Amino acid sequence: MEKVTVKSLYRETEKYLEKEIEVSGWVRKLRSQKNFGFLEVNDGSFFKGVQVVFDTNLENFDEISRLSISSSVIVKGKLVKSQGAGQNFEVLATNVEIFQKADLDYPLQNKRHSFEFLRTIAHLRPRTNTFAAVFRVRSVLAYAIHKFFQENGFVYTHTPIITGSDCEGAGEMFRVTTLDLNNLPKKEDGTVDASADFFGKETNLTVSGQLNGETYCSAFRNIYTFGPTFRAEQSNTSRHAAEFWMIEPEIAFADLEANMELAEDMIKFIIKYVMETCPEEMEFFNQFIEKGLFDKLNNVLENGFAKVTYTQAVEILTTCGKKFDYPVTWGIDLQSEHERYLAEEHFKKPVFVTDYPKEIKAFYMKLNPDGKTVRAMDLLAPGIGEIIGGSQREDNLEELERRMAEVDLNPEDYKFYLDLRRFGSFPHSGYGLGFERMMMYITGMTNIRDVIPFPRTPKNADF
Amino acid sequence: MEKVTVKSLYRETEKYLEKEIEVSGWVRKLRSQKNFGFLEVNDGSFFKGVQVVFDTNLENFDEISRLSISSSVIVKGKLVKSQGAGQNFEVLATNVEIFQKADLDYPLQNKRHSFEFLRTIAHLRPRTNTFAAVFRVRSVLAYAIHKFFQENGFVYTHTPIITGSDCEGAGEMFRVTTLDLNNLPKKEDGTVDASADFFGKETNLTVSGQLNGETYCSAFRNIYTFGPTFRAEQSNTSRHAAEFWMIEPEIAFADLEANMELAEDMIKFIIKYVMETCPEEMEFFNQFIEKGLFDKLNNVLENGFAKVTYTQAVEILTTCGKKFDYPVTWGIDLQSEHERYLAEEHFKKPVFVTDYPKEIKAFYMKLNPDGKTVRAMDLLAPGIGEIIGGSQREDNLEELERRMAEVDLNPEDYKFYLDLRRFGSFPHSGYGLGFERMMMYITGMTNIRDVIPFPRTPKNADF
Repeated sequence: MEKVTVKSLYRETEKYLEKEIEVSGWVRKLRSQKNFGFLEVNDGSFFKGVQVVFDTNLENFDEISRLSISSSVIVKGKLVKSQGAGQNFEVLATNVEIFQKADLDYPLQNKRHSFEFLRTIAHLRPRTNTFAAVFRVRSVLAYAIHKFFQENGFVYTHTPIITGSDCEGAGEMFRVTTLDLNNLPKKEDGTVDASADFFGKETNLTVSGQLNGETYCSAFRNIYTFGPTFRAEQSNTSRHAAEFWMIEPEIAFADLEANMELAEDMIKFIIKYVMETCPEEMEFFNQFIEKGLFDKLNNVLENGFAKVTYTQAVEILTTCGKKFDYPVTWGIDLQSEHERYLAEEHFKKPVFVTDYPKEIKAFYMKLNPDGKTVRAMDLLAPGIGEIIGGSQREDNLEELERRMAEVDLNPEDYKFYLDLRRFGSFPHSGYGLGFERMMMYITGMTNIRDVIPFPRTPKNADF
Repeated sequence: MEKVTVKSLYRETEKYLEKEIEVSGWVRKLRSQKNFGFLEVNDGSFFKGVQVVFDTNLENFDEISRLSISSSVIVKGKLVKSQGAGQNFEVLATNVEIFQKADLDYPLQNKRHSFEFLRTIAHLRPRTNTFAAVFRVRSVLAYAIHKFFQENGFVYTHTPIITGSDCEGAGEMFRVTTLDLNNLPKKEDGTVDASADFFGKETNLTVSGQLNGETYCSAFRNIYTFGPTFRAEQSNTSRHAAEFWMIEPEIAFADLEANMELAEDMIKFIIKYVMETCPEEMEFFNQFIEKGLFDKLNNVLENGFAKVTYTQAVEILTTCGKKFDYPVTWGIDLQSEHERYLAEEHFKKPVFVTDYPKEIKAFYMKLNPDGKTVRAMDLLAPGIGEIIGGSQREDNLEELERRMAEVDLNPEDYKFYLDLRRFGSFPHSGYGLGFERMMMYITGMTNIRDVIPFPRTPKNADF
């Protein structure tokens, strides 16, 4: 008797038909009549469960008939073609071993639960259809990203989570400390003595691996990071989490064009890979979570992404006749309404906006010959807005130092970064993709809390 | 003229021979004579560089002849069979564009540098042979782990980095806070008011994803985590880092035997994958870092791992006639010298030691019928000692509660964990693999600081 997964029953049905098999899993549904009954057993290996038919030939028939939802069972029986509607095959049980009868206060009885409620039982919600689909796709999407970069010769680089530099400048940081907060060591002036801390100085959680990533780019040509990043911002929105994962590739001897090409290839690859690997889950999202999801994703797969400079985009926005809440003038940071107009109404597909005013972008972006704009690019996608932000990096030492002085950064704090411009500087580019942002795009889920297993947000670090 | 990587020149030499190509990279070596010279150009795509021949036909011949090490160049020329010893092909340059002349104080001139010195320039050390090999293998090893689990149907689970429970019990933790340490909010009793912190309570960096991982195991059957973990321990040894990556698979309806089978399959798969994918790097380690590395790894690949119970192991150790610094009696935690004797001298291959006394193992391990030992397993490997630790988990609610009471844990803190034993409890097992420990084993590097891009240790969080 072969132990099999439910997934293999679906994927290799012919192989197991008319064979004696053993499946183990949890009871999702139960219907019983006087002399027989049906269990839907889900074993976690697959989006769907398998139907098990049991009858009075089983000595524990009565006990099975009264099983509580989520009870764990080990079923032996024969796989046969199903007579009933709704499934192609079922298991005729010859033995049903009950491993544990679930307590009756199991919160996931067969009714609809709100996503809000399910967040309060984050340890159980992956047992529901929606979250089983979400978190399997999360796994497959993560793998697709590794697969894409590895097959293209990129080196995966683990940049540090705890950072000693507070100069990444991308947002508010969490402090990491082993000091006893009730008994802090003080300096003579009465302030906290950070030199007594674990690392001998103040340390924080990283907000970006980019600067470290660039150092490895100078050694391996093409690298990517994929790890957790942190923002200590009091943003209680559906799009912000304090802890999220980010992917940051960095490519050498590559300009902004090559950077955009890489981003487009990556997006198409990972969408295609998930659609092919998780057809059942994606069908579920298309049907129940975002109607039209397949049209949206196929539109991305089948079209070249548009490209427009910031200056051209401003012209489009100011002449389109549409009234925006935030008026558009050259120099402003584009707002969500502007980004969505460009992607959804004007281009009707993903669009790269390039060459932003230097004042609204980071210091490390390469200055254009016009002296006003930098070689930045944001990818805006219909339905979600900005999904990628990147740039060519400033590779000229003097220019970079001038820019750092303009924005009041201390070159001493960036010595290792400036070294890259002294010891074989090279044209290079990179971007950041927020993993959860991509998850929301590909699944249609609209709250970031519902695509992270145990989300961390202001006042919430449960489980 | 096709832009090519050095890797493709090595892997597809025939395709490019006699063709005009362009390579870009950094000068690693330079030899020049009156009328011609040689550059070794490394482009980061491959462990080796390519030899470029230049002569006085180039208008900037003199400039090239005086190039500093690590200068960045873009070379156009024809790939031809090499006349010289040491390489099969070379590029006859028709154009050498100098992108940037490296400053002359570049620290990696062509001489041997100690690993200690190289740690002080962690941003540049991947440009050396040793660290180019180490960190490419790190990338490939990480991918091998994902590949193994994904191809076997495991769901990759991102367990949280910031944890609100201080009860994982695996070691000292780092506190995560946004409180202003110079102006702490206090409660009436004068102690710090953690409720004013970002998450509304005290939070720390995770030491293990296992407990969260088990919840996803109850939904997806087979899952794995792969993420950073943290220990705030003042251990300044060659084997401890404050920040390291860990892999923790968890499998449902699986006992300790299945757990050991999974561990053995995984170890063999990832070693094989790295050896096949990085032959040049592994050859380098075998020749310069650990003589006999290939013998060690092939021994692992070609033999079934041994299995012995703790009780049997104690008997072996007490009767073998060898004198240990720490005497062996039943009940002690095995020391490094004992572990190495078992793996290196007695079994001469990796060995699983199982069924340890419950007193020296974690509360969640399944109690054996003897009431004294638990279904734990450690994998000990020759040359390194413990490389994996795991167990079958206690799935019986009453037994688990009794054990928690014995070790003074508050069930309230573990409610979500106990729920798994109430709502469809299931036999399950899992283990943890320290990623850096595996890196050291597979490369022969002996200091953990040399297998982490930017290591974090007491008093050190540079870069």
